[in-house]
Amino acid sequence: MDIIEFKPKFEQFAYTFGGAKPAMRIKPGTALKLWTEDAFNNTIKTIDDLSSEKVDLHHINPQTGPFYVEGAEIGDTLAIHIVDLKPARSYGVSSSIPFFGGLTSTDRTATLQDPLPDTTWIYEVDSVKNTVGFQSRFGDFSVELPMECMLGTIGVAPSGGEVRSSLVPERFGGNMDSPEVRAGSTIYLGVNVEGALFSIGDGHYRQGEGEACGCGVEGAMDSILIVDLIKGNAPTWPRIENDDYLMAVGSSRPMEDSWRIGQLEMVRWFQELYKLHQMDSYQLLSQISKAPIANVVDSNFSVVIKAAKDLLPEAHAFSDMHSSLRERAKGLHF
Amino acid sequence: MDIIEFKPKFEQFAYTFGGAKPAMRIKPGTALKLWTEDAFNNTIKTIDDLSSEKVDLHHINPQTGPFYVEGAEIGDTLAIHIVDLKPARSYGVSSSIPFFGGLTSTDRTATLQDPLPDTTWIYEVDSVKNTVGFQSRFGDFSVELPMECMLGTIGVAPSGGEVRSSLVPERFGGNMDSPEVRAGSTIYLGVNVEGALFSIGDGHYRQGEGEACGCGVEGAMDSILIVDLIKGNAPTWPRIENDDYLMAVGSSRPMEDSWRIGQLEMVRWFQELYKLHQMDSYQLLSQISKAPIANVVDSNFSVVIKAAKDLLPEAHAFSDMHSSLRERAKGLHF
Amino acid sequence: MDIIEFKPKFEQFAYTFGGAKPAMRIKPGTALKLWTEDAFNNTIKTIDDLSSEKVDLHHINPQTGPFYVEGAEIGDTLAIHIVDLKPARSYGVSSSIPFFGGLTSTDRTATLQDPLPDTTWIYEVDSVKNTVGFQSRFGDFSVELPMECMLGTIGVAPSGGEVRSSLVPERFGGNMDSPEVRAGSTIYLGVNVEGALFSIGDGHYRQGEGEACGCGVEGAMDSILIVDLIKGNAPTWPRIENDDYLMAVGSSRPMEDSWRIGQLEMVRWFQELYKLHQMDSYQLLSQISKAPIANVVDSNFSVVIKAAKDLLPEAHAFSDMHSSLRERAKGLHF
Amino acid sequence: MDIIEFKPKFEQFAYTFGGAKPAMRIKPGTALKLWTEDAFNNTIKTIDDLSSEKVDLHHINPQTGPFYVEGAEIGDTLAIHIVDLKPARSYGVSSSIPFFGGLTSTDRTATLQDPLPDTTWIYEVDSVKNTVGFQSRFGDFSVELPMECMLGTIGVAPSGGEVRSSLVPERFGGNMDSPEVRAGSTIYLGVNVEGALFSIGDGHYRQGEGEACGCGVEGAMDSILIVDLIKGNAPTWPRIENDDYLMAVGSSRPMEDSWRIGQLEMVRWFQELYKLHQMDSYQLLSQISKAPIANVVDSNFSVVIKAAKDLLPEAHAFSDMHSSLRERAKGLHF
Repeated sequence: MDIIEFKPKFEQFAYTFGGAKPAMRIKPGTALKLWTEDAFNNTIKTIDDLSSEKVDLHHINPQTGPFYVEGAEIGDTLAIHIVDLKPARSYGVSSSIPFFGGLTSTDRTATLQDPLPDTTWIYEVDSVKNTVGFQSRFGDFSVELPMECMLGTIGVAPSGGEVRSSLVPERFGGNMDSPEVRAGSTIYLGVNVEGALFSIGDGHYRQGEGEACGCGVEGAMDSILIVDLIKGNAPTWPRIENDDYLMAVGSSRPMEDSWRIGQLEMVRWFQELYKLHQMDSYQLLSQISKAPIANVVDSNFSVVIKAAKDLLPEAHAFSDMHSSLRERAKGLHF
Repeated sequence: MDIIEFKPKFEQFAYTFGGAKPAMRIKPGTALKLWTEDAFNNTIKTIDDLSSEKVDLHHINPQTGPFYVEGAEIGDTLAIHIVDLKPARSYGVSSSIPFFGGLTSTDRTATLQDPLPDTTWIYEVDSVKNTVGFQSRFGDFSVELPMECMLGTIGVAPSGGEVRSSLVPERFGGNMDSPEVRAGSTIYLGVNVEGALFSIGDGHYRQGEGEACGCGVEGAMDSILIVDLIKGNAPTWPRIENDDYLMAVGSSRPMEDSWRIGQLEMVRWFQELYKLHQMDSYQLLSQISKAPIANVVDSNFSVVIKAAKDLLPEAHAFSDMHSSLRERAKGLHF
Repeated sequence: MDIIEFKPKFEQFAYTFGGAKPAMRIKPGTALKLWTEDAFNNTIKTIDDLSSEKVDLHHINPQTGPFYVEGAEIGDTLAIHIVDLKPARSYGVSSSIPFFGGLTSTDRTATLQDPLPDTTWIYEVDSVKNTVGFQSRFGDFSVELPMECMLGTIGVAPSGGEVRSSLVPERFGGNMDSPEVRAGSTIYLGVNVEGALFSIGDGHYRQGEGEACGCGVEGAMDSILIVDLIKGNAPTWPRIENDDYLMAVGSSRPMEDSWRIGQLEMVRWFQELYKLHQMDSYQLLSQISKAPIANVVDSNFSVVIKAAKDLLPEAHAFSDMHSSLRERAKGLHF
Repeated sequence: MDIIEFKPKFEQFAYTFGGAKPAMRIKPGTALKLWTEDAFNNTIKTIDDLSSEKVDLHHINPQTGPFYVEGAEIGDTLAIHIVDLKPARSYGVSSSIPFFGGLTSTDRTATLQDPLPDTTWIYEVDSVKNTVGFQSRFGDFSVELPMECMLGTIGVAPSGGEVRSSLVPERFGGNMDSPEVRAGSTIYLGVNVEGALFSIGDGHYRQGEGEACGCGVEGAMDSILIVDLIKGNAPTWPRIENDDYLMAVGSSRPMEDSWRIGQLEMVRWFQELYKLHQMDSYQLLSQISKAPIANVVDSNFSVVIKAAKDLLPEAHAFSDMHSSLRERAKGLHF
């Protein structure tokens, strides 16, 4: 297996899905050891660094990539297996950005009210205990929280010649901000342009479902991925598989539409896997789906629909691609 | 501890929150052994019983209750602990009701399309294996699913003299359709009228998050509850506590508002429990919340926000009411 | 024609649709000269009266009625023709109520931000010029605006035994806050309970579409109505007719659902009136509908769909009830 | 005044905002006589041409442009005055496209239902009577409707390096589908990239508010425009001015957010024009706004907020640009 390491320089980051020149060309089956910068582009380092003062809006949510996957054609399926994720910095950052987040008015849910105070939190990484430390900014309260690394952003170039900000979650993946995009998961994305042009970024050392304040514990990340290609079979919306669950992610507004999209994608997937009538697939999933919210703060809201494998007959999604990738991942370490 | 058993006759069911005469008066601290009819009022018994033909819209989602809790005044908090739930019938029912459910247009998300086919599924209860059996209606596919009993509906009379259908989830609880309303959970509801007037119904032998098709595995249920009263301290929206989680439930439309309500209720609860500034409470919950969808099919959509107790310092919500109820529940059995 | 005058005393107001005892029984064809109190129950009289201090939440949006219409049965259609509306006080009131309105977070679109400042505006009525005067509260800006009286609230008792706050717009009409509910309009409402039990209130001396701040120019109102009954033919959602337009009102959340409801109600109405196929009705309305927003601030958002009569062949809605009422209205004056 | 005529060849159309090479460079103050193709790219010519069979999804909603406006810099304001619009073909087309439109489920409001039947309507243009003829497809019903030409699409390149489909309405204008974009209107758009790169397309011979079925009466159009440039002062969202109204357009989802955006943009505009405090501006607009829906069918829903000039003291928006353009337009004819 080819293993490629890549740590972009500042001027090499991409800030869009589509529209960016490939960082490199890779063959299907390649393993990647990638470094990603945090979503703030490392402008916030202490609690005195305020997002409204430090963050450069032209350099936000930097992406490592895009990678041109050889042989990937429109209608194919890119499979990206996340072998491992590890903090690449000794602290993570979170922030209440004015008019950004879930419990504030925004540029879209627009009101005349004042913004919440621009506030920064720094989470120290303890790599022995494998925790990040929450320290209150007002009063004195602290608690160690388990490290649960994930990638907020993973996606391919959009269809129709569109170029989208790396802040957007959509059909092409992107800024879904789902905790399910973590080590052990395989993400399936439909290919919209030759070469697929996928990129990753926005590492979170942990994040609650919904990403309420608009940020996870944002941090630079080391990632190990294996990238493979399935000819054809492109899912309409991103699908995810890990050892325990089959999943689909819908991203739209209002949030019930995100749910509808994810639920319908799972109904279709079950029809394929188990040769079910759509009404049976709908019914069965109605009784077994898990439906965690991923984000309620981005330009689209994301909802994950999950079905536990242990409730179901064995299935072989995408010709057992996930199992194959799990096998291949075994020798790979930081 | 007083223990009262109650199995309503057909003409004793209530179909609203508020507006119904109390079935009985109980003292705080009473245990109740209640029987609830299924949401279809037992009109659907075989796969040939179609919802559009059999269900009487004036007798849908029957409630057992309401119970007048002595001493309960406006602004108090009712604590209902679910000791145990058990199927009271040998089969459960689910249905795709025309123009009702999550993946169909409805009376509100109104379209000109034809409805999905009115279809009924019967789930056999296996009380030894503790499962319900899914059997496809088209083709031949079956699978045993774990029994996970819950109450779709639990609530008190609304404020402002309103009377609401038992199909509605709102501030007063009601038809939240959350799998978290199950054995081991304590539900906290603000009291809006003297006596609180709570009722339960809509038992599900299991249900996926979202209740996609509009129904769980609907079935008559035996419930054991303990009801207690906390003077004052009424939460704005329903809160739930079990041994592992603190939770709040928001119910509104669009679904992002349900999320906002639940998330804000948790922020307020954390401020109370840990004396946190609202910005710290917001931040901390942003990194630890779970946010499962409960229903996307009722007249309001419900979202649960959960915080795991094991991530946090010990707290004593409502003067440790949940622990006390857990203790008192120990001697109670079917 | 019977003419009944009624000015309720304070203790005679109703605050709900459904659940209130009839103020009186009337025969179909009766004319009513009614007095309605303003939505604040006359608690705000000067700019120093703040809504948060003065408004009694148990006495908000008082209704004149309900009226029991003899012979009205479930499934019938109540036709209420507004003959004339006239300010019953020399000033109107508007207010920015904390956490209520369109450009603020609310109890549902819940955020952690501070509310907008509680502010009151008084509009002097000039009954000669037929204007209300806007006077800025900060700085010195004033402008005379044309009087355009309307009723924010008109509705019947809900179905299913529900009782709803007079603040709610729904299938039964209620707090739609549409400027189309004005002199010259006939409002058609489906009857849900024997006697229909309709009431009116919430007079506005004028109001913008959307009712952005949450209030029109609120004022006590003198109204002349004629009430008539059509056997059967209940519309699903409120319909309105004036000399120029056929209209339907949808009230739900999110606002696209309000639109869908109103648009679908008009498609159905056109199918009835012109014997059109639903696809032709859909198409024709797509090219001629007007779609003004009524309110984006109440517990449901209301959207009006209008079709201009002069674009269409003559139609006879509800057996020409509107024309008949217009004719009968001619002799009625304040 | 320079006058430039331009009728693109098929291969010259643009299908995105941003990302397309300029068709030409023009100086501020230039008049343009432009020809635009219909949204279907002239693939539908008879009622037997079905959208699902004929429309090429890579060539949908073709744009004439983009035009590089010399001197236009980020933060400037482009003013596009529509002098006149005229059908460029003897018939218009409308269609019920499967899973597209307002009264059908879509790729986002996703359901399991069958689509509505793919149906085409042809509207004959009568240029003497200035009408288009609706002819029912099922049964025999016809009616002549007044011609009311408008441009569904007008916009500039987006910010942040994004490239968006010409089907999208957003901050940059785009596919707003508002009947207010018609002869006599001046559209103000913030400039996001050097040269602004504006384009137009999607002519409708008429359209109802909401564009219910997803299409207006689509047709090739001849347009006369004058384009001018205001240094700085970029509005956040599109503003429109005609002789009678000041307007702002919000485009987002859910539709209440589109309303919020448009209403807030008007509040800000009034603060600028009349030196009002934001609370006074909010209040005044609450009583005078018109709020017609533009579209409920595109990837964002658009709402227009309008304030009638005759209710207000004279104002001079953008240094009276609209009056100046009206004056300059006088000599321009087809």
